Amino acid sequence: MPYLSKIASPTLLIDEKICRENLKRMSEKAKKHRMKLIPHFKTGQSKEIGKWARDYGVREITVSSVKMANYFSSDSWDNIHIAFPFNPLEANALDQLASNTRISVQLVNAEVTEILCNTLKNKVGFFIEIDAGYGRTGVEVSDFGTIEAILRKAKESSKLVFKGFYIHAGHTYYEKDISKIYEETRLALNMLKNKYRTEYPDLVTRLGDTPGCSTMDDFGDIDEMGPGNFVFYDLTQEHIGSCQKKDIAVALAAPVVDIKKDKRTILVHAGGVHLAKDVLIESDGSKNFGEVVILTENGWNIPESRSFVKSISQEHGIIQASDELLEKTKVGDLLGILPVHSCMTADCMRSYLSLAGQWIDHAEGH
Amino acid sequence: MPYLSKIASPTLLIDEKICRENLKRMSEKAKKHRMKLIPHFKTGQSKEIGKWARDYGVREITVSSVKMANYFSSDSWDNIHIAFPFNPLEANALDQLASNTRISVQLVNAEVTEILCNTLKNKVGFFIEIDAGYGRTGVEVSDFGTIEAILRKAKESSKLVFKGFYIHAGHTYYEKDISKIYEETRLALNMLKNKYRTEYPDLVTRLGDTPGCSTMDDFGDIDEMGPGNFVFYDLTQEHIGSCQKKDIAVALAAPVVDIKKDKRTILVHAGGVHLAKDVLIESDGSKNFGEVVILTENGWNIPESRSFVKSISQEHGIIQASDELLEKTKVGDLLGILPVHSCMTADCMRSYLSLAGQWIDHAEGH
Repeated sequence: MPYLSKIASPTLLIDEKICRENLKRMSEKAKKHRMKLIPHFKTGQSKEIGKWARDYGVREITVSSVKMANYFSSDSWDNIHIAFPFNPLEANALDQLASNTRISVQLVNAEVTEILCNTLKNKVGFFIEIDAGYGRTGVEVSDFGTIEAILRKAKESSKLVFKGFYIHAGHTYYEKDISKIYEETRLALNMLKNKYRTEYPDLVTRLGDTPGCSTMDDFGDIDEMGPGNFVFYDLTQEHIGSCQKKDIAVALAAPVVDIKKDKRTILVHAGGVHLAKDVLIESDGSKNFGEVVILTENGWNIPESRSFVKSISQEHGIIQASDELLEKTKVGDLLGILPVHSCMTADCMRSYLSLAGQWIDHAEGH
Repeated sequence: MPYLSKIASPTLLIDEKICRENLKRMSEKAKKHRMKLIPHFKTGQSKEIGKWARDYGVREITVSSVKMANYFSSDSWDNIHIAFPFNPLEANALDQLASNTRISVQLVNAEVTEILCNTLKNKVGFFIEIDAGYGRTGVEVSDFGTIEAILRKAKESSKLVFKGFYIHAGHTYYEKDISKIYEETRLALNMLKNKYRTEYPDLVTRLGDTPGCSTMDDFGDIDEMGPGNFVFYDLTQEHIGSCQKKDIAVALAAPVVDIKKDKRTILVHAGGVHLAKDVLIESDGSKNFGEVVILTENGWNIPESRSFVKSISQEHGIIQASDELLEKTKVGDLLGILPVHSCMTADCMRSYLSLAGQWIDHAEGH
């Protein structure tokens, strides 16, 4: 038991084989649709996992912040894209990073475009983020006033290079009809490409949500995809239908500290500081903060009878246990827990233990 | 502006003056009731804040795990109590720590007691955690079978020293009638003290929730209190009535990256990885992930018209803004956000910036 013997406290396990299968599958899907895969590394936040991704042809990556871009900047990526409406307080830090790394950013207004024009001494690419219905961020798809203002302002600097349009169709997480959302996304990006490609012949379009990239099979003429979560997947994605439970590549190893047979509960050291507090509401109204898997020498098995974390506080997780689990579990055991939202769990834990017993890096801090 | 000039990305601010006032107030309350204050440092997780606590007479502290106990072990506390049902996989690590630090743990079953009996070469105190109605952890108050089994087993080792009974009445967070919960808690601890003090004349009783410790004024003959959150407080505590907004000692400084005047929203770089995803449901059903304060040279002001984080994802926070805020805010500004659950926010951010522009430590990892 090379990895189990290393665990005495809550530890995030990663199954490299599953993770590589996820990378391979998405890479093949991108190739099939003649799209470039530029995965969002906010999920893994790991240089080592970045190395695995290279084996499947990944040469450009996506991150959330200048700090995260700095973390990956030593690894010779062809480009690092910061997929967050650019924070102008980091304009100098961006310029410094751009002096030795190819970087692109996301712009949603003319104010930040102007600040970058006035600051940059090094070349930085930019996408305009478009909101085609999600409503979180981006320029509304019909707001040509803002799109034109950004493009006009950017022309004042030779350092700001327009790359194209980006849509994160995050409403695929919440709405049943993903294909309708994707139709709107395709149409929006196609319209923008047609409108601007005379002036910008090299412009590309990109979309970036895991549910759509996993389940859709019509990407129209969209050029690039930037999903993040698919590298690990999680219970949220399984609920949506983006993956199966067997595709989830991370599980929290949680020590069992108490068992109440009469209540059919198992208390584990696995709280909000380990798993995060993302929750699924099941069809019967119950809350699900994670599902139990059985740890083995080589990884984990998904039990036939379901047991799940029914409540969580800062350090405590309470598992509603099946008969089977209750029967075979004792205080001092380790149980695996598949996370509801793997990006958040990884960000809480900030390191991974491989099934070969090796520690895998995760970026520190924000 | 010594501290504001240091901020370019999301940063957790701490107001030392407010924090010290919270420590002073709770310390005076404990003294008034002739109780010993043994604060739970899971909230601040900071050696520097520990130094501040000493100024108000704190000599013993509470933590959540062996790792956290190790973090504080160099600071010569009279005792460090690990207030979590002890994880037997850490028995050796505990024994090692106990060789140079006075430690106590919490026990809830005979199995773990036995493991400690067989492992410990150094003295470790223990509390029996009692569940008097919360239902999360602990031996049920009427379950004398388990209490006796723990005490009997502990007698097999000269290293395990019984200290007393501990109740975390966490249901004060959810139920309106805190005084009823406290009556039950007082009665439970009093009954246990009377039952066992002939055999254990030095036994003490302890309780540990911030809502009760902040608002109650009858602690009966309970000897010690171990609240945690009070050192910072947060919006949850303000909703319960444990504090006022002016007592909240931490605020996240969040960069403004976009403003949508028509929607009355402000997009900030402040997501679940910064604030955590704890949420308050307001009386009108809306979600509240944090409330806006106006940052000044000396700290922050609470505006008269309320603005709040209405939705959150991994990196994005969307503020529903008041007219006043919308009018004076521009892209590139910093806004302060009072957290819904300060323990979780601090655990996400893992460092603090003081208003004097000094970085304050927070323990790393779990």
